[in-house]
Amino acid sequence: MSAVNLTAELVRLQTETAKFQHDFTDNVNSFFLCSMALIIFFMQCGFAFLEAGAVRSKNTTNILIKNLLDSLIVIIGYWAVGWAFAYGESANETVGLFVGHSQFFLAGYTDYSKFFFQYVFAATAATIVSGAVAERCEFACYVAYCLIISTIVYPFLAHWGWNEHGWMAQGITSGVINTKYDDFAGSGVIHLCGGAISLLAAWIMGPRIGRFPEDDEDESDEILGHSVPFAALGGFILMFGFLAFNGGSVGSLSNEGDGQIVALAMINTILSGAFAAITYLIVYFYQYGKWTLLLTLNACLSGMVASCAGCNKMETWGSVWVGVGAGLIYLALSRLVRKFKIDDPLDAFAVHAGGGFWGLMSASIIAKGGIVYALFDLITGADNSGDFIKASFAQLGWQMICALAIIVWSLVIMYPVFAVLKKIGKLRVPEEIEINGLDVFKHGELAYPLRAYGHGWHEFENAHGMKSNSTTVYIGKGDKKKVMRIHPEMSIEQMASVYDRSGRLAQPIQHKKSRTLFTTENERKRSQINFDEDRI
Amino acid sequence: MSAVNLTAELVRLQTETAKFQHDFTDNVNSFFLCSMALIIFFMQCGFAFLEAGAVRSKNTTNILIKNLLDSLIVIIGYWAVGWAFAYGESANETVGLFVGHSQFFLAGYTDYSKFFFQYVFAATAATIVSGAVAERCEFACYVAYCLIISTIVYPFLAHWGWNEHGWMAQGITSGVINTKYDDFAGSGVIHLCGGAISLLAAWIMGPRIGRFPEDDEDESDEILGHSVPFAALGGFILMFGFLAFNGGSVGSLSNEGDGQIVALAMINTILSGAFAAITYLIVYFYQYGKWTLLLTLNACLSGMVASCAGCNKMETWGSVWVGVGAGLIYLALSRLVRKFKIDDPLDAFAVHAGGGFWGLMSASIIAKGGIVYALFDLITGADNSGDFIKASFAQLGWQMICALAIIVWSLVIMYPVFAVLKKIGKLRVPEEIEINGLDVFKHGELAYPLRAYGHGWHEFENAHGMKSNSTTVYIGKGDKKKVMRIHPEMSIEQMASVYDRSGRLAQPIQHKKSRTLFTTENERKRSQINFDEDRI
Amino acid sequence: MSAVNLTAELVRLQTETAKFQHDFTDNVNSFFLCSMALIIFFMQCGFAFLEAGAVRSKNTTNILIKNLLDSLIVIIGYWAVGWAFAYGESANETVGLFVGHSQFFLAGYTDYSKFFFQYVFAATAATIVSGAVAERCEFACYVAYCLIISTIVYPFLAHWGWNEHGWMAQGITSGVINTKYDDFAGSGVIHLCGGAISLLAAWIMGPRIGRFPEDDEDESDEILGHSVPFAALGGFILMFGFLAFNGGSVGSLSNEGDGQIVALAMINTILSGAFAAITYLIVYFYQYGKWTLLLTLNACLSGMVASCAGCNKMETWGSVWVGVGAGLIYLALSRLVRKFKIDDPLDAFAVHAGGGFWGLMSASIIAKGGIVYALFDLITGADNSGDFIKASFAQLGWQMICALAIIVWSLVIMYPVFAVLKKIGKLRVPEEIEINGLDVFKHGELAYPLRAYGHGWHEFENAHGMKSNSTTVYIGKGDKKKVMRIHPEMSIEQMASVYDRSGRLAQPIQHKKSRTLFTTENERKRSQINFDEDRI
Repeated sequence: MSAVNLTAELVRLQTETAKFQHDFTDNVNSFFLCSMALIIFFMQCGFAFLEAGAVRSKNTTNILIKNLLDSLIVIIGYWAVGWAFAYGESANETVGLFVGHSQFFLAGYTDYSKFFFQYVFAATAATIVSGAVAERCEFACYVAYCLIISTIVYPFLAHWGWNEHGWMAQGITSGVINTKYDDFAGSGVIHLCGGAISLLAAWIMGPRIGRFPEDDEDESDEILGHSVPFAALGGFILMFGFLAFNGGSVGSLSNEGDGQIVALAMINTILSGAFAAITYLIVYFYQYGKWTLLLTLNACLSGMVASCAGCNKMETWGSVWVGVGAGLIYLALSRLVRKFKIDDPLDAFAVHAGGGFWGLMSASIIAKGGIVYALFDLITGADNSGDFIKASFAQLGWQMICALAIIVWSLVIMYPVFAVLKKIGKLRVPEEIEINGLDVFKHGELAYPLRAYGHGWHEFENAHGMKSNSTTVYIGKGDKKKVMRIHPEMSIEQMASVYDRSGRLAQPIQHKKSRTLFTTENERKRSQINFDEDRI
Repeated sequence: MSAVNLTAELVRLQTETAKFQHDFTDNVNSFFLCSMALIIFFMQCGFAFLEAGAVRSKNTTNILIKNLLDSLIVIIGYWAVGWAFAYGESANETVGLFVGHSQFFLAGYTDYSKFFFQYVFAATAATIVSGAVAERCEFACYVAYCLIISTIVYPFLAHWGWNEHGWMAQGITSGVINTKYDDFAGSGVIHLCGGAISLLAAWIMGPRIGRFPEDDEDESDEILGHSVPFAALGGFILMFGFLAFNGGSVGSLSNEGDGQIVALAMINTILSGAFAAITYLIVYFYQYGKWTLLLTLNACLSGMVASCAGCNKMETWGSVWVGVGAGLIYLALSRLVRKFKIDDPLDAFAVHAGGGFWGLMSASIIAKGGIVYALFDLITGADNSGDFIKASFAQLGWQMICALAIIVWSLVIMYPVFAVLKKIGKLRVPEEIEINGLDVFKHGELAYPLRAYGHGWHEFENAHGMKSNSTTVYIGKGDKKKVMRIHPEMSIEQMASVYDRSGRLAQPIQHKKSRTLFTTENERKRSQINFDEDRI
Repeated sequence: MSAVNLTAELVRLQTETAKFQHDFTDNVNSFFLCSMALIIFFMQCGFAFLEAGAVRSKNTTNILIKNLLDSLIVIIGYWAVGWAFAYGESANETVGLFVGHSQFFLAGYTDYSKFFFQYVFAATAATIVSGAVAERCEFACYVAYCLIISTIVYPFLAHWGWNEHGWMAQGITSGVINTKYDDFAGSGVIHLCGGAISLLAAWIMGPRIGRFPEDDEDESDEILGHSVPFAALGGFILMFGFLAFNGGSVGSLSNEGDGQIVALAMINTILSGAFAAITYLIVYFYQYGKWTLLLTLNACLSGMVASCAGCNKMETWGSVWVGVGAGLIYLALSRLVRKFKIDDPLDAFAVHAGGGFWGLMSASIIAKGGIVYALFDLITGADNSGDFIKASFAQLGWQMICALAIIVWSLVIMYPVFAVLKKIGKLRVPEEIEINGLDVFKHGELAYPLRAYGHGWHEFENAHGMKSNSTTVYIGKGDKKKVMRIHPEMSIEQMASVYDRSGRLAQPIQHKKSRTLFTTENERKRSQINFDEDRI
């Protein structure tokens, strides 16, 4: 080829390659964000079941619909307003330190994958609170706090900490000091925020009736959740989701080594969770002699929350201490809250605020470049170790200031909200409803309607004069003969009929006949008289 | 370098780059499709639990095995025959408009990721129907419709709408009119198809016994599902899956902007679902004063179904109307079906056919390039607005024709199937089995065998003369002393024993002793006599 | 451009392109591994619920915490030691055949995504065993076997089979014979290992009390799991996870065609599972006349286990036979185990060891290049068919030797462990605890505390003199009037009170008042007297 042709060819190749690299990077980044966001979205199901398992059956539908609506209300609020505050632009630089104000309703914005990823984070922040106010929060109150967190509280924090123009993200630069808010996946802006609001809400709302009986020793009055398996299911889903939460926070796959950071973040997350859980489990066993599942699960989650801030640059040994610390902090805070007779049914404060705060701290103490490394340099007499010490402590100080700012902001916005709701009587359901359960009155849907339980094969047996204690029934004749084993156990329906009988002795009220089995008396009779053995 | 060397080097680079781009694009596309298909596959679990929660406990095993087998039967049918009809080639162009007929058993086909992705769609189409025929469908009937949907009904529709040779995909070109069937993720070929078959099946099969009592006012006879949490679990999983369903339908990451379309599709899906749910929730609350979880969930799903057709090119504001429309259509259809005394336990018709039809319409009305945009152009007096109007209405018309074709095809194939099954008595289980539940007779597996419940620590207490109302038991001595708290509550087993007692009053049948606790009387005695405190 | 410039430009482009390709390949590979590993991690939830559904309610918390801790204990053990043994280096070549010994605590290792992926495999190997020892295993024993499997047993096997230096991976080369251990996703090193340990553990531990009553015919004594839906949930999650398990084992997306192998592996997995399930279902129905859900699910899983070894190079028709074989082997082994009165509650041995062994065999019989292909060549008289036959049978032989080695190694390490634990009385819980359930004594957490159930709206009715059989209650007046429908059904709480009454007849023990509804008698009275209609 001639030089001219060569040049043309080379330029063409350059252009093509650049376009491929650009498009493909965009596409893969977007795919990465979307798939991680998907799994984080599924954490809503995790929260729903963790909480459903921890409430009494009479409030199950209530807690489930709240968790379901969380993600739906937040998408509306965050799409309409929240995103604009968090990541919108501001012409005014000073305003820009605190809030953005463009791209309302995503107008003119097309980086959809980033929006989607941020949305699932906002939904997480809002959903944390539902645990703290479980079993007594008014529906109106729930909608209000959900909207305000997703449109104001969290978006502002995200702007401060994660938008490059935010004041926390900008930090302070002076001499060797160059602090920037360091919170990889949201120990602070999500979990500390959600946890702080949880404590506030639980405190203002007051404990559930019967939560703190006068006689402290009387454990028989403890309010228990109705299903350990549901709580465990929620916990498993949350662990699954947390790995995506922290891994996905890398946010792109464009830079050298991004992929390995994703993996490192996931490993640190599971390690932190493991050490937090094992620490708690051992301490608890030492104290009470029981291997507790529910609290170990909470401890594990608090370890994962703590790992959010620094999991991208923590060496794996560091996660041991992040986890151990989170486990102990969770232990201490959950007991403290109980001591103050604040009723936080899911330990949302202890898990998320405790874990979140320790996450922010540990990110500047244990993670690479943190105080531990500075001290090591100092001890080993490395060059510039004095500057390193100064810089790392400054960073820790900045993290503390930011943590404080997050707490104050969350409380300053939410306190009036809850106070007003209390004033107008929309904070908490009336006593009668709380005592008798929210499901029937508020939602009209019992979680487990007794009517839907039980089978009728025993009645069938009786109708055909079969022996009740037989285990095998033959139906049909000859070749068509089939065997049905009936275990001599009782359907809940039968139990209900026992109630009928016993009930009549005490208070002779004639209950309406359940029609689960047969629609009318006639039908019942007909069905049994006409029973045709060959038809089955 | 010399020009010759340069040329050689350049050519080498070109070749290498081209190979990298080709291989890597292939690999990443395949990874994308597989990971989305994986999550869509998990929707089978979502359908299973949505339906399990909505049936009575006596039919739980039945509905679960049907949903489990759905995906297994469909992989066999779709692999053997379905794929060939949908995406196989046809030498004859006219035949090719309607069906393909090569690559049976995937012979000679190697784009496995596309097959895998299409398979999970086929499984979805089949599984929709199981909700409509719940609690009364014969197993043989279920296997038959499952096979026929996955091998004939759905594959033909996929061919028509999604194979480039299909008649719906080809559409009509004439002047400014250039219609093509526009159904991004299957509002029509999957959901409208599944929904239409659901209505047909529910109608032919007739309502469950007791579903429509003579006395309309009598709500106490309503058939309720046995577990709201299971229904909610299913709903959460389906929402999770729907995002992959719609996002994954982009089908590749090779073109500029594909990644952002994935994200846009997901955002539109969740927005549609949110607006459908909130709309329904508010209307329902206005009418009945209750915040219903189960129906809100259905409305949310119907919004997501509606978003399938146009979520890739809908602007986010458009999803508001897709959602509101879907919520109201679901509301109307579910009541209409009820009015006609057709028993569709899961509202499969209202959710999937209603949502699906509105999806097809909205894709040509609200989505970019739709009628709304044409009207806007007309009003603002843009150039060619007349042609735009004409083209967009033609598109709407074509969508309607295709929707009609989908419905007619689905019914024409399935009606004879159900009619024949009815004729030979294999459509519906016999009355006795329906009344007493399918689990025991058909599957021999009770969902919750009473025998498996309860613990024996109360008996333990009695055996050791402990006070029954004590809350603390000390076991062992000295250092080995351990505390066990026993709450004064009742095990279901104890309840069962109550039944025994009460039962004896009414009908003196001696039930067989449950041996959950001890295998034999002797063992029981021995165990309690030999109780060795130091061993625990 | 001049030649010099051109050269410079070309070199720049070459460098840039190479860097992009290198970085991007790394990132995408890591993303691929992490996302697949994430879903495999979620399999822990699947195992947890499969097992929780299969135990009695009194052991539910116990089985859940074991499955939760599995992943947490294994990350610690595998990170500290296991990885070093499996994938660490060894300077000594002979030692290197058997074990590595560097990179303890991941020191100096940075391919985090590979570690993460291998970790979830280790967790799977450990968790398989928990099913076999369910309902009777001591907590100490569980922790011990969990640690030893994740630090010694599995890591050595992974080294042998999957580390290029391992003796199984090196295989034998001699003439036309060139055998290498062929186990794509771990039919052998994971499932056969876990399955073999399961049998050993179940055998040493002995059957659960009451599992094998003297009277064989007496089915009423069978121990049943307490929740079919939970078992099904676990099964669905495991199927979901298995696709990632096998698809993810491709391990990279860097080579031509990798993406399609991922898809092929997934298709083969689901096909194998489907044929195994359908085969089992039909045989079982033919024998017993029931469509069993639980066993069909197990058969499906055993088909998926069998597909692990060869799913990457199996043609789809081959999976038919992998599946059918796995289904039948599962059937045979599960009955054999039962015949020998070994109590393996989850059929962990039959599913994992049976499926795993058949997987190793079928990979060298049915998969591409296997005996079936050699025979086909022989019959069609292709060139070198004799060599092909020789090589393929040698490969089968090597697979058998490796399978044997896996079994022997697993048993040789674990037998002393279990034997010592038995000796010191830490293998199995004391009889009293087993009979009465592990949840209360060991964990202090009942899975379903009765106290948490029931609602109080019926009491409410009575307190207000409403008719108990009314279905509608009006609350408030005028505009504020609200309707509440109360179905005439019974809360479990009411059932409990029945027990109280009936119980008193038989044994006049005064149960402590439950305070679920009202904290004190006073509160109760006050609440009902002061009932303010306008407040609700």
